[in-house]
Amino acid sequence: MKKFVYFFGAGKSEGTGAMKEILGGKGAGLAEMTNLGIPVPPGFTITTEACTSYYQNGEKYPEGLEQEIPPNLRKIEEVMGAQFGKKENPLLVSVRSGARISMPGMMDTVLNLGLNDVTVEGLATRTNNPRFAYDSYRRFIQMYSNVVLGLEHHHFEKILEEKKQRRGTTLDTELSADDLKEIVTSFKNTVRRDTGKDFPQDPWQQLWGALGAVFLSWNNRRARDYRTINGIPHHWGTAVNVQAMVFGNMGDDCATGVAFTRNPSTGEHCFFGEYLINAQGEDVVAGIRTPQSINGTANSLEKKMPEAYQTLVAIYQKLEGHYRDMQDIEFTIQNNKVWMLQTRSGKRTAQAAVKIAVDMVAERLIDKAQAVLRVDPAQLDQLLHPTLDPKAQRKVLCKGLPASPGAAVGQVVFSAEEAESWVERGAKVILVRQETSPEDIHGMHVAQGILTTRGGMTSHAAVVARGMGKCCVSGCADVQIDYQHGQFQVRDQVVKRGDWITLDGSTGEAMLGKIATIQPKLSGDFGSIMSWADEYRRLRIRTNADTPTDSRIARDFGAEGIGLCRTEHMFFEPTRVEAVREMILAENESERNRALSKILPMQKGDFKEIFREMKGLPVTIRLLDPPLHEFLPQGESELDELSKKLQVPVIRLKAKVEALKEFNPMLGHRGCRLGITFPEIYRMQVKAIMEAACELARDEGFKIIPEIMIPLVGHVNELTAMRRETEQVCQEVIKDMKVSLEYCIGTMIELPRAAITADAIATQADFFSFGTNDLTQTTFGFSRDDAGKFLPHYIEKGILAHDPFVTLDQEGVGAFIQMAVDKGKSVKSSLKVGICGEHGGDPASVEFCHRIGLDYVSCSPYRVPIARLAAAQAVIREKVTEGLKGE
Amino acid sequence: MKKFVYFFGAGKSEGTGAMKEILGGKGAGLAEMTNLGIPVPPGFTITTEACTSYYQNGEKYPEGLEQEIPPNLRKIEEVMGAQFGKKENPLLVSVRSGARISMPGMMDTVLNLGLNDVTVEGLATRTNNPRFAYDSYRRFIQMYSNVVLGLEHHHFEKILEEKKQRRGTTLDTELSADDLKEIVTSFKNTVRRDTGKDFPQDPWQQLWGALGAVFLSWNNRRARDYRTINGIPHHWGTAVNVQAMVFGNMGDDCATGVAFTRNPSTGEHCFFGEYLINAQGEDVVAGIRTPQSINGTANSLEKKMPEAYQTLVAIYQKLEGHYRDMQDIEFTIQNNKVWMLQTRSGKRTAQAAVKIAVDMVAERLIDKAQAVLRVDPAQLDQLLHPTLDPKAQRKVLCKGLPASPGAAVGQVVFSAEEAESWVERGAKVILVRQETSPEDIHGMHVAQGILTTRGGMTSHAAVVARGMGKCCVSGCADVQIDYQHGQFQVRDQVVKRGDWITLDGSTGEAMLGKIATIQPKLSGDFGSIMSWADEYRRLRIRTNADTPTDSRIARDFGAEGIGLCRTEHMFFEPTRVEAVREMILAENESERNRALSKILPMQKGDFKEIFREMKGLPVTIRLLDPPLHEFLPQGESELDELSKKLQVPVIRLKAKVEALKEFNPMLGHRGCRLGITFPEIYRMQVKAIMEAACELARDEGFKIIPEIMIPLVGHVNELTAMRRETEQVCQEVIKDMKVSLEYCIGTMIELPRAAITADAIATQADFFSFGTNDLTQTTFGFSRDDAGKFLPHYIEKGILAHDPFVTLDQEGVGAFIQMAVDKGKSVKSSLKVGICGEHGGDPASVEFCHRIGLDYVSCSPYRVPIARLAAAQAVIREKVTEGLKGE
Repeated sequence: MKKFVYFFGAGKSEGTGAMKEILGGKGAGLAEMTNLGIPVPPGFTITTEACTSYYQNGEKYPEGLEQEIPPNLRKIEEVMGAQFGKKENPLLVSVRSGARISMPGMMDTVLNLGLNDVTVEGLATRTNNPRFAYDSYRRFIQMYSNVVLGLEHHHFEKILEEKKQRRGTTLDTELSADDLKEIVTSFKNTVRRDTGKDFPQDPWQQLWGALGAVFLSWNNRRARDYRTINGIPHHWGTAVNVQAMVFGNMGDDCATGVAFTRNPSTGEHCFFGEYLINAQGEDVVAGIRTPQSINGTANSLEKKMPEAYQTLVAIYQKLEGHYRDMQDIEFTIQNNKVWMLQTRSGKRTAQAAVKIAVDMVAERLIDKAQAVLRVDPAQLDQLLHPTLDPKAQRKVLCKGLPASPGAAVGQVVFSAEEAESWVERGAKVILVRQETSPEDIHGMHVAQGILTTRGGMTSHAAVVARGMGKCCVSGCADVQIDYQHGQFQVRDQVVKRGDWITLDGSTGEAMLGKIATIQPKLSGDFGSIMSWADEYRRLRIRTNADTPTDSRIARDFGAEGIGLCRTEHMFFEPTRVEAVREMILAENESERNRALSKILPMQKGDFKEIFREMKGLPVTIRLLDPPLHEFLPQGESELDELSKKLQVPVIRLKAKVEALKEFNPMLGHRGCRLGITFPEIYRMQVKAIMEAACELARDEGFKIIPEIMIPLVGHVNELTAMRRETEQVCQEVIKDMKVSLEYCIGTMIELPRAAITADAIATQADFFSFGTNDLTQTTFGFSRDDAGKFLPHYIEKGILAHDPFVTLDQEGVGAFIQMAVDKGKSVKSSLKVGICGEHGGDPASVEFCHRIGLDYVSCSPYRVPIARLAAAQAVIREKVTEGLKGE
Repeated sequence: MKKFVYFFGAGKSEGTGAMKEILGGKGAGLAEMTNLGIPVPPGFTITTEACTSYYQNGEKYPEGLEQEIPPNLRKIEEVMGAQFGKKENPLLVSVRSGARISMPGMMDTVLNLGLNDVTVEGLATRTNNPRFAYDSYRRFIQMYSNVVLGLEHHHFEKILEEKKQRRGTTLDTELSADDLKEIVTSFKNTVRRDTGKDFPQDPWQQLWGALGAVFLSWNNRRARDYRTINGIPHHWGTAVNVQAMVFGNMGDDCATGVAFTRNPSTGEHCFFGEYLINAQGEDVVAGIRTPQSINGTANSLEKKMPEAYQTLVAIYQKLEGHYRDMQDIEFTIQNNKVWMLQTRSGKRTAQAAVKIAVDMVAERLIDKAQAVLRVDPAQLDQLLHPTLDPKAQRKVLCKGLPASPGAAVGQVVFSAEEAESWVERGAKVILVRQETSPEDIHGMHVAQGILTTRGGMTSHAAVVARGMGKCCVSGCADVQIDYQHGQFQVRDQVVKRGDWITLDGSTGEAMLGKIATIQPKLSGDFGSIMSWADEYRRLRIRTNADTPTDSRIARDFGAEGIGLCRTEHMFFEPTRVEAVREMILAENESERNRALSKILPMQKGDFKEIFREMKGLPVTIRLLDPPLHEFLPQGESELDELSKKLQVPVIRLKAKVEALKEFNPMLGHRGCRLGITFPEIYRMQVKAIMEAACELARDEGFKIIPEIMIPLVGHVNELTAMRRETEQVCQEVIKDMKVSLEYCIGTMIELPRAAITADAIATQADFFSFGTNDLTQTTFGFSRDDAGKFLPHYIEKGILAHDPFVTLDQEGVGAFIQMAVDKGKSVKSSLKVGICGEHGGDPASVEFCHRIGLDYVSCSPYRVPIARLAAAQAVIREKVTEGLKGE
């Protein structure tokens, strides 16, 4: 028979701290503390396996469970010297959920179980405190009725309120024992009226009811949602802890509190916590009374109960020394005796995580590898962007998606042009658009932040903003923009051009007015963690950067090269887009070449600056990728203006715009399809790259190996043709400039056909760079810009565990990457492989890239530290796994 | 040393008819005829391998070739008793290209080689015919100068014309020997003037020049284009045949002609051909004089040269008996002696192909398997659609793509509504649109044919028209439509609403006015071929049909079920689209259900009719696939109208249209993504399908197993969820109607992610149907509607061998299909697999589907016979290959 119940108490547990999978986090902690000789009220844990079986059995307890519980309850009685359901010295228990990973507040708890009309009297006698006994009873009825019987809290709150009103008081504590007795009677009447049955008096019936309710609460709506959002598997199930009650509310020699072994906000090495005298745990959480600090003040636990405090200090030190991590603990003091109710790793800010990890290495509690694992890469974002002052008041106007973290304060503008002219006059602006397009880039550049009403976490606005390290809130559907009148509206609130708003890119909130921000500083501890990470990682980390500024930021963050330099953003600068448009409107090759010759020196200048910033690190430059229509204006007035500027009739412009229109631009005339149909465009770009590199090599002694990347290849013949053209230009430049220079030519793998024919393609490529954004789009058949209509629903329903544009879909897209790497290397073992999609900055995706043996990942500048850390963690975890296998 | 030259002559050849790969078609035919004892002027063939080496060597002859030629020329001299370059009885030769597969007129030929100022006199003396000798010389100079020296024909034509004018004649034959001598002098002067050198007098120099020119002509522009279009590999190379000249132009006992051993238009079993007395072969082809029939008339060869004719009859019978196929032969009669210059399988119409194949089985020349192989499946289209009378005059107005074959005559209309109202009044119309959309279906249905100005062979118009078996010319870029004034313009020609035009869907031409059409009849021979095909094939052939009419046509053509019944076309009928729009505009589930309940009985009626037509054959019904915005009108006036009809404010309609807009609808909110977000739509459809099947089973004793197909699945969880919903509805209907009915639930595989996770998906699917249209789009990242901007260029440049939307891309898309079949069957061996894209009617794709073991292909009704034949050929060819392997 499978063992479903594990006892702990009186210094000995059947379980251990390592058994989180079956005991849950709380159960494992209680078992471990008991084994450490720390005072823990005795109890037992029903395993997660019992819960899983319960669901598999159509919500019936698994065989054997019902037999295991009575003897274990008997043991609690023995340790406590009390008896369940007996009037003399009755045993009361708590019934609490406890999953493998903490899901705070999501599941149900029942306290004070075992009280009834008889045992409440026994409790009153034994504690000599009828008020306490009846207060506990009324709390129990209220909680049990809600959790097990499904009655709403407010029925009971109303009775309590009325009684307090009649007594002319606002505090529960001022109600007398008699008042509470009457309340108990009213509560019981309510139960009888609403359920048709008496409140159960049999403690065993109470216990079974509570156990079933806690199991069921694993699957309530909010628990399911929480798991979906946090990526916790639905099949894990929860453990249930049944534990003798201890009371922090028996009098003034009682208390209850929560504490952290170090400061969870700053990481400072000092005992940190709050407590309440004469209260139960829920009071601290509910915030009915304001808790006191446990130390450092006149009303602290340290001052009020010095002995208990010292005991607690000894316990916390023992726990931290044992777990070698900052602990989050819960305790209750009953008649001056300290009881521990929980210990677990404490949640902490990024800043605290970094400081604690580095301090613990200095204290020799952990080694550097452990320290590297202690910092959550995703959290680092907090350290790298300015944030809103957490102390500032915020009144939320509307909420969208947290598309790019950080905070931004500025005046509302509605177009890129407005943004530029306002900023020229010294203003700070927030660009508000339905969506952004590549034409808005210059406006995004000068704005403090971007707010869009459409588009998801990977919409144009979101991706570009993250690339710029700029705050962005996207997909804020409540916002109705009226471009014509220069205002937007959220329900009744109208916000006009020039009004101040504040964005919080980490929460997706937008607020009216200016809210104070703080600029976090990168500590020396941060530097230590990153340099330790670099000692471990194998993956190289490059950056996606299109400008000298981005390149410099990325290098400062530790980028080891540029994995993706997009050349199209350079085309959008107002001084250049005119020549680009001339090129597009050319009627023949020679007109096109004339326009291209205007662009050549500008592109060359860009490349020189970027090469200089990267100081000889590798730079992968992607030739022009987007469809040409992106460069043409669409609006009537813009077309008129362009017509005048270029002296081309409007009708011809319109015809061109019409001719270039596409039903599905994502699958349209772009990438190397442009290079093949208009070879002169790529020739100009290659010439600019090579001349830039040659001039720097010749004049400034730089050693650069440009990596020229052909986008959107699906068939080897495309790459063969483009490689031939490219090499020809490269050789011409080298010959003309009389410089010896290496270069390499590779391709993006961003189409399923490229992956499945990667062996053929590799014969023509020096490197593969996986464009995981487009590869995700074509693999799933999802348009990144349209998926917002169903993806949230998919995540909510659990059809997809993650947004595949945020975290790489390993089963599908990942399988294609793996296939392409295998096929590519089968014909060319020297093939260099990396990824350059948004996933390069996602920790789980970085881990995957490490595992399948890529050479590098490339991500936006502000994500470089995240990738460095994630890459190091991948190595360390792999070693741990290998170590375990070796044992 | 490799042998590069093969001699034939005097009844013996070094080569045989089986050596087409190295001797080319012409060379192999000459060798075989020689071996059969048929009179062939002696000569030798230089192999295709020599040509390949020539190109690999940087256009130099391979080692050994130059040594092999003189001894072989010597042998010709011996057989002919003539000498190359000698005045007495000079040997003249022809130099002709000859690839493995005939590429008529694409490569170069030089005749009369060996003539110079000396040998021409010898020829004149020996033939006693100076006029003939100088005519041959001037022809040689003209041809050689063009082919080898690169001079334009018109230089020489001009001289000839001037001479004729001065002589007051229009016929070459009326020029005297002296005239021709003067012309020769002028020709030589022209060569000297334009090339700076004398016309070469050394016959060996002439020969080497001609050989090089013929090799080079393999790679001229028109030959390359021809190969690209016809899928002939560029690396094959051409053979070169050097052969003693015989002359049909030496006098009235000379003639030249071409003939077919049976009638190539009708297949009738009779000798069929044309000839000219006193002429060279090129005169027949050039059409300068009108040739005479070889038999059946007073001027026939039969009458004029009865002996020669009888010899020819004996030869043709011998050849047909030997080759067991209809032959296309070329002959020359010199002084009453018949010489054969070529034999090859004759090209023929579909009608002829069918008749000849069936006749030859009756004549015991071939067996049924060979007969089945003799008909080109792609050609069958000709038999199934009405065509323009080939005798009718046609003046082409403009030319687009031959999108759907057949002919159509009708009056021009510009919208689906116009089409309907005109047809109601008894008119025949051609629908002319920039492009069509699903909203135009009802107009397309009633139109005779469709002309579009945009879109390729697989645009909406093309695909739907082929599905309907309706003539369509697409992408006719010269046509400028002016909807406002109800007219279109091609250059200066204006065509108004109501004007008559004629379309030829087999050539892509549009003509003004009414041109006569003919309705081909399906012969008994056709039935024989198809029934023989059915004896061989393993693949089942289903059809893509959405209406009872299509279903009936397809069943008449031999469809064994419906592989794809799209339900969305049913939604577009004017009486229904209103309810559909109501459903889309619904604010909540109950409003949506109310609208759906109006659609349910209509859908049920559709399904019943289709089930009845298919008489118990399997029917696969795909649940709603397109994005909802396709069902909403876009124009202002249509929106106004809808607003009035549904009593919904225009502003709300516009907001809905706006909200449903997508950047890339192909990758948007469609397929099962709709089913998951609006489950009530699929529930209604499943209910309609099941109620229809149950009612027919209960009331009419039908045995139907509906196959319900969930579109656009990319992740198994999507199918799991949809299967659960679907089964629930199925069970409910079966329970309500108290009928026992089997059904199965499967999915389209049309996304790369579905292919690579097909093992997971197969656990939830009873069948896979490969949607090769969408799978091609996502695999390549090509939008079918936009690829027209670069695909033609890709085909032209040889980057892709075929349009992947027409012929399945076996390396990429095919590899995904293979992968999905393997993965799917690895977990479920009973999985049924088929394809239902446009490729189901493409012979090469059908062969692929057979080879990888699919159970069926499904294609548009008019393509069913093509698929049946192609499937049979696949089996027969496979057996031949296996037989060869077994040897």
